[in-house]
Amino acid sequence: MTPYTNERVRIRAVTPQVDGGRSRAKAVAGEPITVEADVYADSHEVLAAVVRWRPQTPSGRKKWREVPMAHVLNDRWTGTFSCDDVGRLEFTVVGWVDRYGTWLRDIRAKVEARVATDVDFAIGAELLEAFAGVAGAEDAERLQRAADQLRDDARFPESRRDLAASDDIVDLVARLDPRPHATTFDRTLVVQVDRPLAGASAWYELFPRSASPDPDRHGTLVDVVDRLPYVGSLGFDVLYLPPIHPIGREHRKGRNNAVEAAPGDLGSPWAIGSAEGGHKSIHPDLGTMDDFRKLVSACRDHGLELAMDIAFQCAPDHPYVREHPEWFRHRPDGSIQYAENPPKKYQDIYPFDFETSDPEGLWNELRSVFQFWIDEGVRIFRVDNPHTKSFAFWEWVIDDLTRDHPDLIFLAEAFTRPKVMYELAKVGFTQSYTYFAWRHHRWEIEQYYTELFRTEVADFFRSNAWPNTPDILTDYLQAGGRSRFAQRFVLAATISANYGIYGPAFELQEHLPRPGAEEYLDNEKYEQRTWDLDDPRSLAPLIADVNRIRREHPALRRDRSIAFHHVDNEALLAFSKSDEATGDTVLVVVNLDPDQPQEGLTWLDADALGVDPDGSFTVEDLLGGSTWRWHGQRNYVRLDPSESPAHIFTVTR
Amino acid sequence: MTPYTNERVRIRAVTPQVDGGRSRAKAVAGEPITVEADVYADSHEVLAAVVRWRPQTPSGRKKWREVPMAHVLNDRWTGTFSCDDVGRLEFTVVGWVDRYGTWLRDIRAKVEARVATDVDFAIGAELLEAFAGVAGAEDAERLQRAADQLRDDARFPESRRDLAASDDIVDLVARLDPRPHATTFDRTLVVQVDRPLAGASAWYELFPRSASPDPDRHGTLVDVVDRLPYVGSLGFDVLYLPPIHPIGREHRKGRNNAVEAAPGDLGSPWAIGSAEGGHKSIHPDLGTMDDFRKLVSACRDHGLELAMDIAFQCAPDHPYVREHPEWFRHRPDGSIQYAENPPKKYQDIYPFDFETSDPEGLWNELRSVFQFWIDEGVRIFRVDNPHTKSFAFWEWVIDDLTRDHPDLIFLAEAFTRPKVMYELAKVGFTQSYTYFAWRHHRWEIEQYYTELFRTEVADFFRSNAWPNTPDILTDYLQAGGRSRFAQRFVLAATISANYGIYGPAFELQEHLPRPGAEEYLDNEKYEQRTWDLDDPRSLAPLIADVNRIRREHPALRRDRSIAFHHVDNEALLAFSKSDEATGDTVLVVVNLDPDQPQEGLTWLDADALGVDPDGSFTVEDLLGGSTWRWHGQRNYVRLDPSESPAHIFTVTR
Repeated sequence: MTPYTNERVRIRAVTPQVDGGRSRAKAVAGEPITVEADVYADSHEVLAAVVRWRPQTPSGRKKWREVPMAHVLNDRWTGTFSCDDVGRLEFTVVGWVDRYGTWLRDIRAKVEARVATDVDFAIGAELLEAFAGVAGAEDAERLQRAADQLRDDARFPESRRDLAASDDIVDLVARLDPRPHATTFDRTLVVQVDRPLAGASAWYELFPRSASPDPDRHGTLVDVVDRLPYVGSLGFDVLYLPPIHPIGREHRKGRNNAVEAAPGDLGSPWAIGSAEGGHKSIHPDLGTMDDFRKLVSACRDHGLELAMDIAFQCAPDHPYVREHPEWFRHRPDGSIQYAENPPKKYQDIYPFDFETSDPEGLWNELRSVFQFWIDEGVRIFRVDNPHTKSFAFWEWVIDDLTRDHPDLIFLAEAFTRPKVMYELAKVGFTQSYTYFAWRHHRWEIEQYYTELFRTEVADFFRSNAWPNTPDILTDYLQAGGRSRFAQRFVLAATISANYGIYGPAFELQEHLPRPGAEEYLDNEKYEQRTWDLDDPRSLAPLIADVNRIRREHPALRRDRSIAFHHVDNEALLAFSKSDEATGDTVLVVVNLDPDQPQEGLTWLDADALGVDPDGSFTVEDLLGGSTWRWHGQRNYVRLDPSESPAHIFTVTR
Repeated sequence: MTPYTNERVRIRAVTPQVDGGRSRAKAVAGEPITVEADVYADSHEVLAAVVRWRPQTPSGRKKWREVPMAHVLNDRWTGTFSCDDVGRLEFTVVGWVDRYGTWLRDIRAKVEARVATDVDFAIGAELLEAFAGVAGAEDAERLQRAADQLRDDARFPESRRDLAASDDIVDLVARLDPRPHATTFDRTLVVQVDRPLAGASAWYELFPRSASPDPDRHGTLVDVVDRLPYVGSLGFDVLYLPPIHPIGREHRKGRNNAVEAAPGDLGSPWAIGSAEGGHKSIHPDLGTMDDFRKLVSACRDHGLELAMDIAFQCAPDHPYVREHPEWFRHRPDGSIQYAENPPKKYQDIYPFDFETSDPEGLWNELRSVFQFWIDEGVRIFRVDNPHTKSFAFWEWVIDDLTRDHPDLIFLAEAFTRPKVMYELAKVGFTQSYTYFAWRHHRWEIEQYYTELFRTEVADFFRSNAWPNTPDILTDYLQAGGRSRFAQRFVLAATISANYGIYGPAFELQEHLPRPGAEEYLDNEKYEQRTWDLDDPRSLAPLIADVNRIRREHPALRRDRSIAFHHVDNEALLAFSKSDEATGDTVLVVVNLDPDQPQEGLTWLDADALGVDPDGSFTVEDLLGGSTWRWHGQRNYVRLDPSESPAHIFTVTR
């Protein structure tokens, strides 16, 4: 390429651009995608820019579509579009010197200052004639007529200016501008467009082993089918089951994580594999593949979708260990290296060795596990500890699988360092567990969700907030009490468009820890439990209410619009979310104190709420039912944890 | 490439990386270059990383050198090196799983917990034997001996651990580690290494036309030679002359920017070109090419270097206009488009049209202007209004010229929008004018220099601070008075490693504006002036003092180490700079109030000063001469503008 270019516009810092385009940004089908860019040129001419985008289809590339960009501030431009197709799209930015726009700006200044000359108008006429040269016959004629009128010195300058600035001409020019010397951003960026459930979802986790109403009978997939009306009535979208595969017998853990299992102990579902099969088999005590298919189908009848757990690790008696010893690391004594966190040892778990001499064999086999369950109709996978498997593997397998199945959803269960969690999102995980469970103070909640939702992190990372999991019973919840569970539930379900709970332990407020651990006593991971779903203390009615509110209010299914509002009492957290398309706006106020009523005065961000900072507006508490007429930014709020953990206000003018 | 990789380390967000590697970062020969990167892997092993770098030489590539990186915090790693050669260097980052380091960490934990087994030690022994396989005979023997000792179960675990962790073995392993499955960052980044003057310089601008001591005789280059002892004694590094070319006669401007020149009016030096020549000619009234050569040489005798002004624009009678009409834009009446800022017209200036049909001809001719003066020994160019010429041109011409002449310095005179100024730095300008002249309040000075020196801007943009220029006489200086000029001088010369003044107007505190303009009355741009350098009110002694302090204190020749310190009086600005190599630290306190004494208590950033926050240290005022023993972070400061504008403290323990 010759260096001598007539290009004058520069395009830099295009967003969303994940790590210089190395990773795909994320979007949701039907929701707005906003592209921003620094666009500027030398000198002082008027510029124009567009976003160019098109779906990436396996069968060749579609035609580019365009949306205009507008200048915002400080040479930053923005353009918004949305894509209804799930899959991938690519986009770039094009900018050019708008010669007609420049001339129009200048002629206005000259007419205003009474210095416009015939030559000045002739310049505009020449531009119109150039556009006529690339127009159809009718348009060409209109442009030529306008050009002639611009040259007509019998007309007043004001009249010639108004003619030149008429919508008719300006629109025609915008359509015909051949954009000489246009600059195209030097990279095409890719966006993964997921289905709406990827952007907003309520998850419910339960152990099939405990689905049996009879403590003396192991729960089955059929019992899970019987549980669906309950889960469905609570308003969840996703039913997530811990691993349902045969459980290893060698080094099996006992109840409460005892090193030695007693006879009859069930073992951990995450210690996968035994003589009865591995990652593509179903635990015989849970049922058959046919039962599984019935469950997948029954979920749909209750507005639910089934999520599988993918835990790529093996019990010592997993068939892979015998068939593929090369996929594991060996110790000098010939034994296979078990999982360790020195000095702790986990002899019941063999991790795969991603430095194996046979990465191709290992990767393809693991891929085939996903494929097996995809073929059985599963589209959602919660992946266990993905941060202990090679990033390159995830990048490859997610890329490969989503190409054929763009409706797949992968949830990364990684509780580790921030950049490692972000890396998993960058390599393709659709959603990610977060530090939600450990964020309790207002300042840390505001700081964390500002980072997740209001910075470039939001381009690639989707928060899924869990107040508890089978592995996590925080100190806060260990203290017990309905108000703590209610508060953490409402916070998770409103601050994060994606959230989940591990039940029925959660709604029944199970809170006793195994001593010394941040984990449940008599944890279902190691034994079967029986739950009384009809317990009158259950949070089920609150959960059903909040999930209904989430379904009725798109604002709660968006994350990027979050705004925090000041309240002059640190125990009260206030944030709002809004949905651009419908104008729906929800303001949530949570009392972070589980014990005492708290009151305070707000200082509302009126812009974020779409209200007049000096005017009146209505807030209706969707949870409590009350309606208030508020005025301006300063309003009184009070929450008594014995009555309600939060206000969920819908805001209307 | 097969997707099946054993690589496990990820390397992201490497800095300095200007716009994803599209532009070169800047460094100074001999000064530290710090490379940072996010480096992490899956799982929990110990990692290692290095910066790889090498000079880019025209005659093939040199061997890579390496410096180790260390983990700082939050998966961020850093490594520092310096390059003594002016020119370009390239670097990248390599990371890998440190298997021996991981084993060592784990064996320590196991020995501590008394669970280390012979098999655990055998793993370490196997690693040492693997390293022995790639070692020379002597090292191999040492490693094998160590391996044998690790396997010796007659030894205590503590003894085997200590042997494995000995410096001897650890160093050997670090040297021999074959780094299996290492990851190399996917891009090689380029740094422009400039000579020290690019990083720290004091500029003095004067009009040769006014260098004559006789008001009735036009100043010449010979007069400028006579002025060198004065400029040299003030301690400046660079003498910068406005354009010295023939000045156009058509549409020449008169005194005080009058539209019509009176007979005998000299015209603006920036209206370049007449029948007497253009950008490669010297104005006959200033002298000959031989005089110019003598001036270039004489500058060196006074510790100065000459900077030329490059203003790529033409007076209507410039030879280019006749010879290359295709390089200019034409109006419908056949005339050439003069410069405009509608409704203002600048009929004395024809800009080049970078959308010309002959960009190759235009670009090469403009390049030849630089080459002409380079061949005459000039290495510093102050470029006039570069933001009104194509960025692509600058990128090409600076890239091309610096390849052959890495000692070139280009100063961008662009007072325009921030991103356009940054773009010029990104396309290659060595230094840039800034908004310094218009930053007066403490908060705006702190904010601006934090952006310039403490963000990624510092990787590519070098501030050159000017309190005045022939075009800029700010409201603040128009108020007149020694204290204002002294304060703005000390601030420019200490806050920015590169700064300049337009003299003698500055040191003589010329302050009367042309009514309605932010510009000097009787501006030298349009007429010859005569200056009384011996005026006793001149700031020359202060200037000489401060320039001497700058030469003696490398801290003042660094920008990135700037730290602002709190003072409980908004009129007092306090900042420090330090030089890592020498430990030199300077703390500057400026009274921003030109009229009243101001006092206050500091709250010093002890880390930035390298002192104990609870201990004592000495501050010696290099400007006033006093010395104080200070204690801790809270210390009293007072400045009376009638005595001194600032303290320039050297800080010692």
